[in-house]
Amino acid sequence: MNLSKRSFLKHGAALIAAVGLSARRITNAVAEEPLEIPPWMKSPGAGFNEYGVPSRYEKAVTRTLIRSQPGTTGSGAARTPLEALEGTITPSGLHFERSHSGVPDIDPARHRLLIHGMVQRPLTFTIDALLRYPRISRVHFIECSGNSQVLYQPTPPTLTAGQTHGLVSCSEWTGVPLRLLLEEAGVDRSAPWILAEGADAAAMSRSIPMAKAMDDAMLALFQNGERLRPENGYPLRLFLPGWEGNMSVKWLRRLKVVPAPIMTKDETSRYTDLQADGRSLMFTYPMHVKSVITQPSHGMTLKGAGLYQISGLAWSGNGTITKVEITTDGGKTWISAPLQAPVLPRALTRFWWPWPWDGNATVLKSRATDDSGAIQPEREKFIAEHGNNAVFHYSAIGAWSVAASGEVKHVYA
Amino acid sequence: MNLSKRSFLKHGAALIAAVGLSARRITNAVAEEPLEIPPWMKSPGAGFNEYGVPSRYEKAVTRTLIRSQPGTTGSGAARTPLEALEGTITPSGLHFERSHSGVPDIDPARHRLLIHGMVQRPLTFTIDALLRYPRISRVHFIECSGNSQVLYQPTPPTLTAGQTHGLVSCSEWTGVPLRLLLEEAGVDRSAPWILAEGADAAAMSRSIPMAKAMDDAMLALFQNGERLRPENGYPLRLFLPGWEGNMSVKWLRRLKVVPAPIMTKDETSRYTDLQADGRSLMFTYPMHVKSVITQPSHGMTLKGAGLYQISGLAWSGNGTITKVEITTDGGKTWISAPLQAPVLPRALTRFWWPWPWDGNATVLKSRATDDSGAIQPEREKFIAEHGNNAVFHYSAIGAWSVAASGEVKHVYA
Repeated sequence: MNLSKRSFLKHGAALIAAVGLSARRITNAVAEEPLEIPPWMKSPGAGFNEYGVPSRYEKAVTRTLIRSQPGTTGSGAARTPLEALEGTITPSGLHFERSHSGVPDIDPARHRLLIHGMVQRPLTFTIDALLRYPRISRVHFIECSGNSQVLYQPTPPTLTAGQTHGLVSCSEWTGVPLRLLLEEAGVDRSAPWILAEGADAAAMSRSIPMAKAMDDAMLALFQNGERLRPENGYPLRLFLPGWEGNMSVKWLRRLKVVPAPIMTKDETSRYTDLQADGRSLMFTYPMHVKSVITQPSHGMTLKGAGLYQISGLAWSGNGTITKVEITTDGGKTWISAPLQAPVLPRALTRFWWPWPWDGNATVLKSRATDDSGAIQPEREKFIAEHGNNAVFHYSAIGAWSVAASGEVKHVYA
Repeated sequence: MNLSKRSFLKHGAALIAAVGLSARRITNAVAEEPLEIPPWMKSPGAGFNEYGVPSRYEKAVTRTLIRSQPGTTGSGAARTPLEALEGTITPSGLHFERSHSGVPDIDPARHRLLIHGMVQRPLTFTIDALLRYPRISRVHFIECSGNSQVLYQPTPPTLTAGQTHGLVSCSEWTGVPLRLLLEEAGVDRSAPWILAEGADAAAMSRSIPMAKAMDDAMLALFQNGERLRPENGYPLRLFLPGWEGNMSVKWLRRLKVVPAPIMTKDETSRYTDLQADGRSLMFTYPMHVKSVITQPSHGMTLKGAGLYQISGLAWSGNGTITKVEITTDGGKTWISAPLQAPVLPRALTRFWWPWPWDGNATVLKSRATDDSGAIQPEREKFIAEHGNNAVFHYSAIGAWSVAASGEVKHVYA
């Protein structure tokens, strides 16, 4: 069920009725209390800011730095606090970061993009030149292939939803379709690969299949309306919708059309998928269908029986989310949750459910399906297939236990 | 023509062909140049930030404070730099601000919402209680009714697109449908009005028609994924899609169901529309259909003949944008511009056009149409109807002149 603006009230009311609640007493408001005149009404408030920031009461809502590589400060990852957010757009200040040698401080006037290799006319672009091309906007998630990797371990980590799954974020990206520039350069369409190279100190590099480059690949210049943030590739990044995040090379400086994959360090020594049988898979690009309940989630405590909002995110690199089922009884029954409209391809999709908690211990789960027909698997099946030693592309169903005390914890169930 | 992800390449290519450009040489890239190893590739970059900010090279992209009321620092407005932005989401740090007595520093644990008056059960809500209700997300613009007011003056102001039109912004808002809470309180549905009062020092107050409150009104808690920004009503604002911004009362503390409009200072001494005949209109809620070309726009200089991207925004408080026509020859011919999908009701809608400038002086305009059938009027007709002394609800077609030198200026044409 996709929920448009107008249909909410009808469906919202139906949902509330369906779960046995009266609209007259659906939650924990209290009877009228005397309304104080708070101190902030007694004198004029603060003046204007050139660039605003969150309230000081929200200072705990930050990205979480899990680790840097030993001996570095900028090589590692920082995660989006998914459990504190709502809707589908990730504020750019909280978009996850993954850098291989820190965030370069690039002067856009000096930055260049070179397209060369198997092309008729090698071309060099300034940022100002790129800003004159036709550009389009798309809302897309980007997910690090190492997202949720702690869940390969045999015991459930005691981490929040964001600390576990927060290497996924979603923005409105605006940029130039890569195909236009490749055509301008006179690309040899029989060439099967393109090397993409970043202008960071790691010269992060990946081989990109020509088919993707000529399909929906974008050279992104803007993120959520403004120019890209430094940690997301300012002034220019490649963007490959639905594919593992490292392929969307940040700080893009070079695209070389080549006859074979380059076998860079970033596609051989890492970003390969170790399987249960000891073999590794290379070039595993699309991120699988996946979902997570963000509220309630590990580390929260419910304040007694009553109505709560279950809310979560689903996404698939292979297309559009068509269904998210949730269970509030540990898997005995599954309910199809409403999806917030518009449901967009390769974008985070918000699902929710009004849940009248009876105060008894239980387990919550969500299970997503996409329009390729793929369904998120149970963890047991997923681990049987992939083993415990893998790192990338974890996508199994997760579970949160709710104790009678209201405490919510991560469990394997 | 709505432009989905997949259809861009087809339409994009068709558009480029339509304007007589070859994909092989559509803009000003240069032939291959030696690619330097820039300094930022020679040592590791910066480490992680808990909450990210834009590049230091973008520090000129800020809100513009036009004025504060005499003797105050927080009463006035600051505008979104529309000409520097792309897509449809406004980053929250650049969302316009309009405050009547500054931005209060509200402790969310102490904030209360009281619903009382003509209800069976007056109720008081904490923020934590509100977070347990069903909530929905919607992408909507909000526009101050005083936006573009300088254009009532007889000579064209020399201001940028943002300085002129930047009291409009667009976010993904998430909150609780107001109807659910009114029903819980046992609202008297025959009561025609609701007083909404803010917790700022101005106690900003408006009378809200019951029909709107029971239709699509929302109690917004989140903006672009995170909790509301202080200047946009943290921790709670009323949100009335499509209606003049001041009705969406920020820092909302009280909703009183009443038998008649309260005639607050904010709906009598201001926010009334002086007409050409000397009468004033009250209670003029929806913002009219409107558009503005943001690139190129006043203050920019084109660098010689060649391909440029015309890009702009259209919106209507009465519904969904169905068409934006642009002229690049001062009104002799009009072209229907592509609209970036998804086109959402009461949301900013991006239009664009690849424009091969021949280097001659000309005038650019845009004209929007919405699904109520309303069409943005020419300025001459609009001023004849409304006069030069009005302040609010300016919505006429605007014009930018392009000189042979490339200089872009605001003109009445």
